Amino acid sequence: MRNYQVIAAEKVAQRSSKIPKDWLISPDSSKDATNLLHIPTNCGVLSDVEYNITSNYDATALLEKLRAGEFSAEQVTRAFCKRAAVAQQLVNCLTEIFFDEAIERARQLDAERRDSPDPSSSLPPLWGLPISVKDSFAYQGHDTSTGLACYAYEPSPEHSALAALLLDLGAVLYCKTNLPQSIMTGDSDNHLFGRTLNPRNTRLTAGGSTGGEGALLALRGSVLGVGTDIGGSIRVPAVCNGIYGLRPSVGVVPHGGVRDVTVPGTVGVMSSAGPMATSMRDISLFLRTIMKAETWRYDSTAVSIPWGNMNPKKERLRIGLVEDDGLYTPSPPVRRGLKKVADILRGRSDVEIIPIALPNVGQIYQDLLSYYTLTGSDYYFEQFARTGEPLVPSLAALTPLLAIPGTTLKGFFDLNVRRAEAAKTYLSLFRDSDLDAILMPPAPHTAVPLDTWSTITYTGLWNYLDYPAIVIPVDQVREEDATDDISNAKFGAEDARVYGLYTGPEDYRDAPICIQLVGYRHQDEALANTAAVLDGIINGN
Amino acid sequence: MRNYQVIAAEKVAQRSSKIPKDWLISPDSSKDATNLLHIPTNCGVLSDVEYNITSNYDATALLEKLRAGEFSAEQVTRAFCKRAAVAQQLVNCLTEIFFDEAIERARQLDAERRDSPDPSSSLPPLWGLPISVKDSFAYQGHDTSTGLACYAYEPSPEHSALAALLLDLGAVLYCKTNLPQSIMTGDSDNHLFGRTLNPRNTRLTAGGSTGGEGALLALRGSVLGVGTDIGGSIRVPAVCNGIYGLRPSVGVVPHGGVRDVTVPGTVGVMSSAGPMATSMRDISLFLRTIMKAETWRYDSTAVSIPWGNMNPKKERLRIGLVEDDGLYTPSPPVRRGLKKVADILRGRSDVEIIPIALPNVGQIYQDLLSYYTLTGSDYYFEQFARTGEPLVPSLAALTPLLAIPGTTLKGFFDLNVRRAEAAKTYLSLFRDSDLDAILMPPAPHTAVPLDTWSTITYTGLWNYLDYPAIVIPVDQVREEDATDDISNAKFGAEDARVYGLYTGPEDYRDAPICIQLVGYRHQDEALANTAAVLDGIINGN
Repeated sequence: MRNYQVIAAEKVAQRSSKIPKDWLISPDSSKDATNLLHIPTNCGVLSDVEYNITSNYDATALLEKLRAGEFSAEQVTRAFCKRAAVAQQLVNCLTEIFFDEAIERARQLDAERRDSPDPSSSLPPLWGLPISVKDSFAYQGHDTSTGLACYAYEPSPEHSALAALLLDLGAVLYCKTNLPQSIMTGDSDNHLFGRTLNPRNTRLTAGGSTGGEGALLALRGSVLGVGTDIGGSIRVPAVCNGIYGLRPSVGVVPHGGVRDVTVPGTVGVMSSAGPMATSMRDISLFLRTIMKAETWRYDSTAVSIPWGNMNPKKERLRIGLVEDDGLYTPSPPVRRGLKKVADILRGRSDVEIIPIALPNVGQIYQDLLSYYTLTGSDYYFEQFARTGEPLVPSLAALTPLLAIPGTTLKGFFDLNVRRAEAAKTYLSLFRDSDLDAILMPPAPHTAVPLDTWSTITYTGLWNYLDYPAIVIPVDQVREEDATDDISNAKFGAEDARVYGLYTGPEDYRDAPICIQLVGYRHQDEALANTAAVLDGIINGN
Repeated sequence: MRNYQVIAAEKVAQRSSKIPKDWLISPDSSKDATNLLHIPTNCGVLSDVEYNITSNYDATALLEKLRAGEFSAEQVTRAFCKRAAVAQQLVNCLTEIFFDEAIERARQLDAERRDSPDPSSSLPPLWGLPISVKDSFAYQGHDTSTGLACYAYEPSPEHSALAALLLDLGAVLYCKTNLPQSIMTGDSDNHLFGRTLNPRNTRLTAGGSTGGEGALLALRGSVLGVGTDIGGSIRVPAVCNGIYGLRPSVGVVPHGGVRDVTVPGTVGVMSSAGPMATSMRDISLFLRTIMKAETWRYDSTAVSIPWGNMNPKKERLRIGLVEDDGLYTPSPPVRRGLKKVADILRGRSDVEIIPIALPNVGQIYQDLLSYYTLTGSDYYFEQFARTGEPLVPSLAALTPLLAIPGTTLKGFFDLNVRRAEAAKTYLSLFRDSDLDAILMPPAPHTAVPLDTWSTITYTGLWNYLDYPAIVIPVDQVREEDATDDISNAKFGAEDARVYGLYTGPEDYRDAPICIQLVGYRHQDEALANTAAVLDGIINGN
């Protein structure tokens, strides 16, 4: 096989060729800026209408406009293709680009609608909506390289289950988004496509592993994207980019036909597919639409729990408040964000806040790492070696993890025994306090400088237990978020090291502050309902 | 630890002491008879009312009578305790007996009802209904020995999840039922409690592993029981005893707190808990009641799929007909039963029969055995050795299986890869023909002579794929079911050996003939609806 650098040079050139010439922006557009969010406004590529379409609606509102015929599918698709092209030039968030196919499909959708005897009644629920997906979802006719040179130029013979389902639901897929080498780090950086930048602050990470999606959404090159999450890979980029992100219970959203680069047949802690969006109601829209869609017909790995049209109204929500996970002390802005939210909720008669502590996170985290490395990491290295790829910095930083030798079948069963015990303990936590959700930070920090995100205890706990979890943006770093003494890190040297990453509001300018809401396993609908109520209270949505 | 024979002698004496003296029947009652079904009628233990209660109602009808106040909970409970005591004396089907506790609970239920301001509206759905459970379900204060001497005299400190749930739903638990040493054979025979006989024909097996339950239901010492099934352990005794039995998708019915005697932490092919009953509508009643009950609150292992109140009416059901599994040729009575059913259905305008073939059952069966023996069988032997137990004959017959050395983590993952492929293939089978269910034999034979049931390909396939499957009785062996030439066994020497087990209607007198209906994974409610329609057509229910 050829060297990865040769493959990457060709691949990147090919990708560039997919952006029409008149959609190119001046290379100087982002010069000296660390916050790039304003650039799509005045770069000259989008018309006023296209700027309006991409700026002023979430997916729910766009679907209303599409359904009403106020925007055509082609118009909306072209607008998001253009804005995604701009985003790509600014932050390198895309992998596969198929704008031409998408616009052609949108044209067909419009034509079919014109020719239909009863146009509006027969439209599928996502009719005409552009949706972006992480690179690991197979899309027929395009690579599923996951950023590895060894898988470049191998077009997928068929759609992943979710891609096929989204198309049947009327959506338009137009691009795939960037991710880290190995899909296991907090920086979406690989040797095939390079690094995705954070458009809010280019000195901070865009997050991973679904970081391309996060950056694309922040720039509104998409309003609805799909990622995967086995330790935080939807929620970490949601935090970094200030968007909404849901990790559903495993299998609720079809995961079949997703390439993960782990040993085939691996079980234990499983990856989950889920939505990323600019509003809470779009998260609910996605979840509801998928859960109503008989996913089992698309995916033999699906856990096809039907949407139950549960009554979302409760007299009084019971919310468990977790201030820290006992391993990492939240940084000053994260503490301020959580306190702000808790204070708002404490002032409500329809919410009760119950302070709780998370049991045994240290042991759980160790076991989570053991699940990730059941067979060691040789399989990764073998894939990298095919084209001579070295490790990207964020993966090289995980060297201790990569050195874990793996375990035996007996060792695997022992992990399962401990997890079954933890599952009982955490069920008690939920049930005995009759919780509707747990409210906690999604991480001990906001987006951090490039290649320094190493902590997934706040997110990974819920992968270990397979609980659904939603990230909701609530604020951003402000001048008041001064550093404080590192002695405030309560849990030892590693905590102090991570706590020390926060160097004050100047370095962290515009970094979003988010909360995480966690529901019980398979109660994804109930969590979405609870999150919608709380988001309404917190963010006035 | 003491020798198993000493423990067993004490345990059996203790069990006998739980049956009141005036519930004892003459030891001559069953003398020379092979069919014992008539004995409860005229043994003198049950009053006319008790005979009526236990003979003429299924659970659905009993619940109506209980709700209407026509029978008291105590009256119904006492009637079933008596009849179960008679059944125990006839076929040795019980393990733990707690009639006194059950009658006391029933009395309390009656008293609470009398004292309630609005009695009928507040009754839980299983109010006052006696339910029997397999020994492996923990019931607080009583052993969960699973027939192993090493676990005798260790009362369970808490209820299994299902026992707790059933009690909260208003049911009365009154006894636990017999099973094989290891819970892995087709004969419910162990050194602690001995062998359960088949009350329809004592020369044939009562089946396993939930054979005590099957025999108890056949004698109407219970109308609703619960078993577990990892290869056919609900369906095989349903076949042997001519009752209805459902193996749900794993986790749909709570399995937490069930003792299986395999290595802790084992995953792969999992045991499923499910109902056994005397009518199809009782199977639906159980499934509906459990699925409506927020099982996740009881069991951290539950897959809590809510009952969807699906519309059970379809214009035309599409039923895939499987005549054999390509490994074992159905015996003459099984062929006749399936043909009879298929002919009835072919004559209907509301059913379409689509002949199908099951792909790759041979490889699947080999892999199923590999899943059963991931870590070999040392763990079994260690448990037996604690009290010096030898293997019962039906387990000794599995010596080749017990000799499998187990596999590695890599070997386990390879099994998972093949199963994922099979799951895709079988999804296509279901989806591409738009099937509502598969109709097939539950085994290549009816109940067979003691210790000769070795074949679980017809049932185990659905454990491997985790598809729900229901056994429905449709006929019994009749004079017309002559043996035919062994050359009719189409699939080789092993097939011929099993085919040769059928020695004609005299030896197999009164053996039930059943069919199996199979649905898609997690579509348990849809399968129950389809089965109810077909049972109505076939059996006029």
